[in-house]
Amino acid sequence: MRVCLTVAYDGTDYHGWQIKPNGITIESVLHQALSDLLGEDILLIGASRTDAGVHALGNVAVFDTDTRMPAEKIAYALNQRLPGDIVAQDSKEVAADFHPRHCLSQKTYEYRILNRRFREPLKRRYTYFYHYALDVDKMQRAARFLVGEHDFKSFCSIHAEVETTVRTIYTLDVKKAGDEVTIRVCGNGFLYNMVRIVAGTLIEVGNGRLPVEQIDEILAAQDRSAAGPTAPACGLTMVGIEFL
Amino acid sequence: MRVCLTVAYDGTDYHGWQIKPNGITIESVLHQALSDLLGEDILLIGASRTDAGVHALGNVAVFDTDTRMPAEKIAYALNQRLPGDIVAQDSKEVAADFHPRHCLSQKTYEYRILNRRFREPLKRRYTYFYHYALDVDKMQRAARFLVGEHDFKSFCSIHAEVETTVRTIYTLDVKKAGDEVTIRVCGNGFLYNMVRIVAGTLIEVGNGRLPVEQIDEILAAQDRSAAGPTAPACGLTMVGIEFL
Repeated sequence: MRVCLTVAYDGTDYHGWQIKPNGITIESVLHQALSDLLGEDILLIGASRTDAGVHALGNVAVFDTDTRMPAEKIAYALNQRLPGDIVAQDSKEVAADFHPRHCLSQKTYEYRILNRRFREPLKRRYTYFYHYALDVDKMQRAARFLVGEHDFKSFCSIHAEVETTVRTIYTLDVKKAGDEVTIRVCGNGFLYNMVRIVAGTLIEVGNGRLPVEQIDEILAAQDRSAAGPTAPACGLTMVGIEFL
Repeated sequence: MRVCLTVAYDGTDYHGWQIKPNGITIESVLHQALSDLLGEDILLIGASRTDAGVHALGNVAVFDTDTRMPAEKIAYALNQRLPGDIVAQDSKEVAADFHPRHCLSQKTYEYRILNRRFREPLKRRYTYFYHYALDVDKMQRAARFLVGEHDFKSFCSIHAEVETTVRTIYTLDVKKAGDEVTIRVCGNGFLYNMVRIVAGTLIEVGNGRLPVEQIDEILAAQDRSAAGPTAPACGLTMVGIEFL
């Protein structure tokens, strides 16, 4: 059967999702734990191959197995074999041809900025500490330019190889609660580093270095150097995926 | 001059506040960093000597120094010498006879319970994971019995040596937001393990093992064994102290 696994992780101590020759990754830990649990060599297909240091509340991976264990029990059994910073949240059987990257989906990411005078140790792993003042209203106005179908080439790391750089952002909200500014984005897919470049650019608007209206020009430029910097990985969390 | 330092820390990797012969503590790290910074042997007087694994957003310590550095600058300079899990939040000069444990104060603690089906890695260091159902309304009603001046002997670890076990709780609130149940308590002081025993007892009310009204009997018993278990340290955060 094909099993769809939902997984949450603290990415701080990992070299990202994807298995690499050197360095421990989320996928390598899941591969080992699932293979041990099911007594087979389990190959995972991840929905979002998050970067080093990026977190997830609901990333998704599918795998095939001959096990007689009910699919719903796998998450519980797997958690007995996983470290505290990777936790399965759900497991269920899906159609044998279900592929999490080849079907329509809606992904949600959150970028959390800790905006205060001093660092806060309880949030240090999950937020980007930024102590200059941010104008959240300007950031929200700038965000509106990015909603919809656009060519996001300016918001894509230059070494990425993709067929098209056109993506659709359904919603992009900037909210302040206490000393945290959260950028929440929902779209049909994101280019390499796209959410972090969007965050880095909105921060440049928030601190006054970029005028709100320039977002339109940055989109039109189709040039990575037109946008702001790539915000640090620690602030980014893959919230979840909805398959349509 | 006497300096009052406010400090936040992630207590996960420390053996509590107080300097011990073995094991690294918050006080030992602050002692070393302050002594290096100011070129003197700096002795700290802590307001709340939190246990191993307990966190703080605003614990307070005072110390005397001959430095010519302005008191307000010490927090910034100190943070250059502290690890990421201990961060000074403020420093200011106070009266030479100010003692954070010998004056009237109001302390606030929060106990965070993660109440859901699976663990959540981003909250694992700062919450107690409890997956059985909790009746928050019952917990709130039980909490009301503890508000006011009482002899909290039943809520004090038996090996504690104190003059009196009478304390005043000003407010004690139990709130649910999403999958988190937070117990927030404000009082004029707390006995050894008192907040964690209050949390452990309210959890026993929430899961139905203790009737709401039994809290009154537990108080009257003046016996540690009458109350619920001591909830784990990881869920506890010292929020702040107000000196009156």
